[in-house]
Amino acid sequence: MNPAWSSPTWVGWADAVGVERVANLIDCDIHNTVPSVEALVPYLSDHWREYVRQSAFRGPVDTAYPASIPTSARPGSKPEKGPPGSDLDLIRAQVLDAFGAEYGILNCAYAVESIHNPDSAAAMAKAVNDWQIAEWLDKEPRLRASIVVPSQQPEMAAREIERVGDHPGFVQVFLPVRSAHPYGNRLYHPIFEAAARHDLVVGIHFGGAPGNPPTASGWPSYYLEEYVDMAAAFQSQVLNLIVEGVFDRFPTLRVALIEGGFTWLPGLMWRIDKEWKGLRREIPWNNRLPSEYIREHIRLTVQPWDEPPTVEQFFQVIDQLGSDELLMFSTDYPHWHFDSPEEAVPVRLPDGLARKIYSENARAFYRLSDG
Amino acid sequence: MNPAWSSPTWVGWADAVGVERVANLIDCDIHNTVPSVEALVPYLSDHWREYVRQSAFRGPVDTAYPASIPTSARPGSKPEKGPPGSDLDLIRAQVLDAFGAEYGILNCAYAVESIHNPDSAAAMAKAVNDWQIAEWLDKEPRLRASIVVPSQQPEMAAREIERVGDHPGFVQVFLPVRSAHPYGNRLYHPIFEAAARHDLVVGIHFGGAPGNPPTASGWPSYYLEEYVDMAAAFQSQVLNLIVEGVFDRFPTLRVALIEGGFTWLPGLMWRIDKEWKGLRREIPWNNRLPSEYIREHIRLTVQPWDEPPTVEQFFQVIDQLGSDELLMFSTDYPHWHFDSPEEAVPVRLPDGLARKIYSENARAFYRLSDG
Repeated sequence: MNPAWSSPTWVGWADAVGVERVANLIDCDIHNTVPSVEALVPYLSDHWREYVRQSAFRGPVDTAYPASIPTSARPGSKPEKGPPGSDLDLIRAQVLDAFGAEYGILNCAYAVESIHNPDSAAAMAKAVNDWQIAEWLDKEPRLRASIVVPSQQPEMAAREIERVGDHPGFVQVFLPVRSAHPYGNRLYHPIFEAAARHDLVVGIHFGGAPGNPPTASGWPSYYLEEYVDMAAAFQSQVLNLIVEGVFDRFPTLRVALIEGGFTWLPGLMWRIDKEWKGLRREIPWNNRLPSEYIREHIRLTVQPWDEPPTVEQFFQVIDQLGSDELLMFSTDYPHWHFDSPEEAVPVRLPDGLARKIYSENARAFYRLSDG
Repeated sequence: MNPAWSSPTWVGWADAVGVERVANLIDCDIHNTVPSVEALVPYLSDHWREYVRQSAFRGPVDTAYPASIPTSARPGSKPEKGPPGSDLDLIRAQVLDAFGAEYGILNCAYAVESIHNPDSAAAMAKAVNDWQIAEWLDKEPRLRASIVVPSQQPEMAAREIERVGDHPGFVQVFLPVRSAHPYGNRLYHPIFEAAARHDLVVGIHFGGAPGNPPTASGWPSYYLEEYVDMAAAFQSQVLNLIVEGVFDRFPTLRVALIEGGFTWLPGLMWRIDKEWKGLRREIPWNNRLPSEYIREHIRLTVQPWDEPPTVEQFFQVIDQLGSDELLMFSTDYPHWHFDSPEEAVPVRLPDGLARKIYSENARAFYRLSDG
């Protein structure tokens, strides 16, 4: 293991948060990385193998985390060979074993939604998913994974969910939070329909680069904005999913919001609830308070923790959420923003809440069996 | 007065909130309306008078509040003649006299920023401002107003601020929150420079239609989204103003956020403060915590009140803001979203806080003299 991992932030977490409270840790955001397009070649058909070779296509880039820039990886997370996140043994050592995790959920941000050739996008998604089964899920029983889909072509995405959705290792469909249209739009309903049919969570994750500006007022200038403004993208997606009636149409659907923060949620719930009372006539399928849809259908990972300045204010936020079942632990390994269990939750939690955030909320939401 | 105003929401407010606590009420968001382009003709040059007549131009539309749709006006706010907000006597009766307001700040949302001909935009802005001086400010000493500017042409906007910025009735420059670029962008610095030179607040108000989608994920479907998503537009503007160094470059600048809500602010401050610690090297001109810039330079109107479900949670939000000087009372007259003083602040406030929200915060921010 790279010595950088022995830094103080990586050790002593069990003492810091209390061992008994983090038994059965579930990490809801581990990024496994396709090392190169070559790794996918065995999972492509002859046609697409030749297409990749002849076009010298090197695969799509997750523009939120391009290779070789500092935010894409914490020091010490790069294996001997290949990019950070590409080596199962290192993920075992640095996450699963290091924290005694019972489960880790992989989010492979292979940006097939950015490929404009729809058949190519679908073929690459299929290859990534077969690669995930062979190289990750079949090899490590503690891992679960997210299905990579060509979300820009919802019918094709639904077919990919159909194809692999019953594999016991897949617990989620991966969607980047920034999209060409808000996800509640009827264009995307085939994805939600397929996810609901296979009892899969839809995981909406930080990132995406659909071409639209990332704010309501065009393009900002700095990476800090890229990172913080993404919280607003989550807000508009949550609102849109509710008002378009996605949860009315697919009443068993569950949506995880991953790497978007969570302290913005109380204010959003208050605001939507209030406006819904005056405007519900335009969305008559919404027959409950919007905040009730949120508490029933949506969960959020704790990384990035937005860090209220006082512990008291953190508990105010939990109170304002109106539920202690909404937050789920995540590390965001191996990204720069990675939080160890003690960093991810920088306050000392009461036992019951710690169990929920570190384990029980995710176990229930992802239908993971008891360890 | 139209009998509709005698509804319970319009009477008894002084009892409800306590008369002694709302002496010297200041309403920070009253919309005066240009009744028709004809009203501006006397303030246009011969060239533009002919241009308007020959082209049959009817003036730009504030797309957030087009005439004749229900959200643009509360029942009973339409004068005998002309659209709601166009009659000084009715504004006197329904706001200034009705609530005993000491000051009312006019925000004329005449969308000159949507006019693509830059000279026409500047000419219309000039006409609106001269109309505001003649028809509003010269006639009613309790009123103050916002300078309408062609913000899409910042140099021309700065010249308009130069032209009328020393008029004692103007206390603010009006900008719609949705813009082609975030306002911190250097393109817009001439506007802030002119505002700072004339000691004017820059008032960023709900609305705007620059052509960009209003979310990071394209166009939503419902009016409820139009209304609620606007809070995210405010968030990205606040962030951008800070990180682009606007407050470092113009250290006396004050920015009011009008009709954007405020319960989203604590989470945003926590998030920016945290990320700033890790990313400040890209914005070295920011030499303090972002939340300190916010508390020094930014104020927010209370309408729309996002309505935490409990009074306790409202006071938590005040605590989380880290200051009781950030909120300023507003009615949003005559829009449908209008809140009377008792509706605008639906909790009973301690005396000191009530005085600040209803009067003192705005008085200090807008440099209004004691009544």
